[in-house]
Order: sequence, then C-alpha cells, then structure tokens
Amino acid sequence: MARFDRHLFICTNERDESASRPSCLPLGSKKLKSAFKDAIKEAGLKHQIRANESGCLDQCEHGPVVVVYPDAVWYGFVKVSDVSEIVEEHLVHGRPVERLRLAPGCLNTASCPHRPPA
Amino acid sequence: MARFDRHLFICTNERDESASRPSCLPLGSKKLKSAFKDAIKEAGLKHQIRANESGCLDQCEHGPVVVVYPDAVWYGFVKVSDVSEIVEEHLVHGRPVERLRLAPGCLNTASCPHRPPA
Repeated sequence: MARFDRHLFICTNERDESASRPSCLPLGSKKLKSAFKDAIKEAGLKHQIRANESGCLDQCEHGPVVVVYPDAVWYGFVKVSDVSEIVEEHLVHGRPVERLRLAPGCLNTASCPHRPPA
Repeated sequence: MARFDRHLFICTNERDESASRPSCLPLGSKKLKSAFKDAIKEAGLKHQIRANESGCLDQCEHGPVVVVYPDAVWYGFVKVSDVSEIVEEHLVHGRPVERLRLAPGCLNTASCPHRPPA
C-alpha cells in the first residue's frame, strides 16, 4: 500500500479556561476522533483513510475543527452526529459536505463572524 | 487568507516502553516540531505554512515521522539538523528532500527493512 487516500486531522488541543481563545478538546473532539475511526473502519476504509488527533489547527473559534487532506477541506463545528455524513459523502464518494465546511472568510482570518476583532 | 499552502504534521505519539512498536516522542519529535515552527517563521512563512503535532501516524519504525500536505510527502528518521534543508528546499522552493523521504515500500506496510514481519 502507498499513501493514505485521505488523512483527517481532528484538533484535540486544550487551552486553559482563562485563555483568550477557545479550544477544541472541551468541545468533545476526542469522542469525535473515535467516531471517525469507528465509521471509517465500518466503511471498510481502515487501510486507505486515517483519522488522527492533532495539535491546535488555529481555527479556534470554529471548534471542533477537522481538516481532510490532501483535499485541504476544512470542517467546523463538527458534531459526532455529523460523522456518518462526512464519511459516506466525502470519504466514500468524494463529495465534501458543504454545510459543514468553514466559509473561506472564516479560514485563517483575524476576524470573522465567529471571531470578532480583538 | 485562505488555506495553508502547506501543512506539516509531526508525530508526537508516545507508547509505553513495553509496547511492541516504537514511537516518535522519545526520539525527540517535540523538539523537531519546535525547530520546524522556528524555521518556518524565520523563512517568513508563518502565515502560509503550519507545523502541527499529531497523534500516531502509523509509520512507527521510521520515527520521527513527518508528513507534508497537500503534497502527501512523507519523511522518516528526521533530525533537528534536517529541518533547515526541508524548509529551504521543500517549503520555500517546492522540492521535496529525496534523501529523507520514506521509500514507497516503507509506507503503510506490514513489512519493510525497518519493520520485520511480526
């Protein structure tokens, strides 16, 4: 086997409660990672697609955040209940789930509707 | 700004010493991540390229392991002293550092020269 067909990274960063930006772990991203791993296995894609924890993906106001490579598709506010749709639509059929994608104006920005200017 | 031009994931997984496979953290991958972050900043690419920690990338016999997306270029046995070359050659000029790439026969395999059959 060669490279993974797709590789998901799920932010599991945890900040102190007093931090100025939120973080993904307290929003349940460990459970999210487990749900992705289970759903990928159930879809028979265990060897082709991998779901990994990652450090802070720097999209902190949109957590839990997931990025799918090599597509570079970013999802925000992902819930465990969204996992089966992402796996079936995106990972199996190659159709990113538009309703869960971070808007272009929300990605790597200092200010967006979810991140008011400091 | 939009997506990252490139996104590095450096495995910082740690297994128990009694585990059957090795892991990247004891091989210095936290220092490696810091070195990548520093070198990317020095190259003026802080906003275009991100270096993240990740969970186990499952190439455990080749640690420390780094994967660069969206290229899907995998590096193994990466040392802090290799970081400047990867940043200058690959991240700045788009030329992967061939001498550090995992051989195709080493990626996602149950057996390779570094991973004898169980």
